[in-house]
Amino acid sequence: MLITSEDNSLIKKIKKLREKKGRYEEGLFFVEGVNSVKEALNSRFKVEYVIVGEHVNLDYRGNFKLIRIKDGLFKKISDTVTPQKVMAVVRMPEFRVEDLIKEEGVFIVADNIQDPGNLGTIIRTADAFGVDAVFTINNSVDIYNPKVLRASMGSIFHIPVVATSEDVLFKLKEKGIKVFATHLKAESFVHEFDLKEGVAFVLGNEARGVSSLSCVDDFIKIPMTGKAESLNVSIAAAIFLYESQRQRLIKNK
Amino acid sequence: MLITSEDNSLIKKIKKLREKKGRYEEGLFFVEGVNSVKEALNSRFKVEYVIVGEHVNLDYRGNFKLIRIKDGLFKKISDTVTPQKVMAVVRMPEFRVEDLIKEEGVFIVADNIQDPGNLGTIIRTADAFGVDAVFTINNSVDIYNPKVLRASMGSIFHIPVVATSEDVLFKLKEKGIKVFATHLKAESFVHEFDLKEGVAFVLGNEARGVSSLSCVDDFIKIPMTGKAESLNVSIAAAIFLYESQRQRLIKNK
Repeated sequence: MLITSEDNSLIKKIKKLREKKGRYEEGLFFVEGVNSVKEALNSRFKVEYVIVGEHVNLDYRGNFKLIRIKDGLFKKISDTVTPQKVMAVVRMPEFRVEDLIKEEGVFIVADNIQDPGNLGTIIRTADAFGVDAVFTINNSVDIYNPKVLRASMGSIFHIPVVATSEDVLFKLKEKGIKVFATHLKAESFVHEFDLKEGVAFVLGNEARGVSSLSCVDDFIKIPMTGKAESLNVSIAAAIFLYESQRQRLIKNK
Repeated sequence: MLITSEDNSLIKKIKKLREKKGRYEEGLFFVEGVNSVKEALNSRFKVEYVIVGEHVNLDYRGNFKLIRIKDGLFKKISDTVTPQKVMAVVRMPEFRVEDLIKEEGVFIVADNIQDPGNLGTIIRTADAFGVDAVFTINNSVDIYNPKVLRASMGSIFHIPVVATSEDVLFKLKEKGIKVFATHLKAESFVHEFDLKEGVAFVLGNEARGVSSLSCVDDFIKIPMTGKAESLNVSIAAAIFLYESQRQRLIKNK
């Protein structure tokens, strides 16, 4: 069966998922493109629908409903200008924050990060460095925003990414995780701290910096000798994660 | 005097600067927004015109022509959806590659980098770490592309950024600079190399990697323990520059 009408109830439902409100009402989000759909199907996430265009043939396996729609309809439901005509509609997972916090773990707390490309890149980088979880707090952009998911390149399916509240900082500290907040006026550089034990890096808003200072053990900065006054927040995140990784590799030699 | 018509010759000239061809014909490029215009005026670059909207008042000083235009005209010449109504038209500088290569320097070679946001972020990060020059080769996106300039946040005015050819790799090597190319299949990690002497990092295309292997001393990779297969190229650049910076700081202690 081929869906040809914009008035079809499933098409209407998927259209809603482009907005945050619609996503949370339905408990669903979507990813687009062959690679992201594969990542979804190979993950523990529940894929409800795989939506394909008129002439797309797939050999995906899994317990999902396959829906074929008129090519023209993709423009109505996609977040991109030139849709790839392959989409997965996925159920939001439920994580218990407490279960994710391991004593020797590495964590990212995104505090009011607004730019979807930045948050997506942070998630991708966190995945590359084997981070245990990414938490978003204080009005950060929605983790299921299609632009976040696109920049994360499927990493949302590899590591736990959880929209939560400032409480997570208390929970991290209770478990003995050292909480570092990035700050230009910090007194010490990232490489001067011992990052081999459990660590969490709180990354602040692109313009205003970190807003949650509760539970922060120390401020941390990146050695900059040039004229640019700041780094992009996703660049800062990467440097913290790299430095932690480097120290752990040297320790385990 | 207020320019009100799209047919004005200056407006026509600036419109051309949105395209690479027009920029190189005129030898000019433009930056938008109060901060970038200030950076341009505080730099050694020659600012030809500062263009402002009907009600913008500035206290900029310098040897430039101040041009006031009808607010509506900004949409015709700007690269953004909501123009800031302040723009500087700047003459392209001329650099001699040889003059920029210092023996103990740090250099970035962007090899066929396509995404303007990536190149702009690389330039901003290079500036933050006090890099001596950024060279682009092999069909990288134009350094004066408005989207590159926007992501670079004014850093183009702080460090030399030069569109050149693969020859730059020979020139670097001649001066004793160690040339590293990023490669997923490299045998050694970035922190295992001595990056305290003169170094150049060749960063490859987002999908295809480095294309210029001439003069490469060694391949270099970033320690990744997670599931993401790669990092964004601007993230990789930042980690190389941070590691080089870290080693130099420790050496100088």
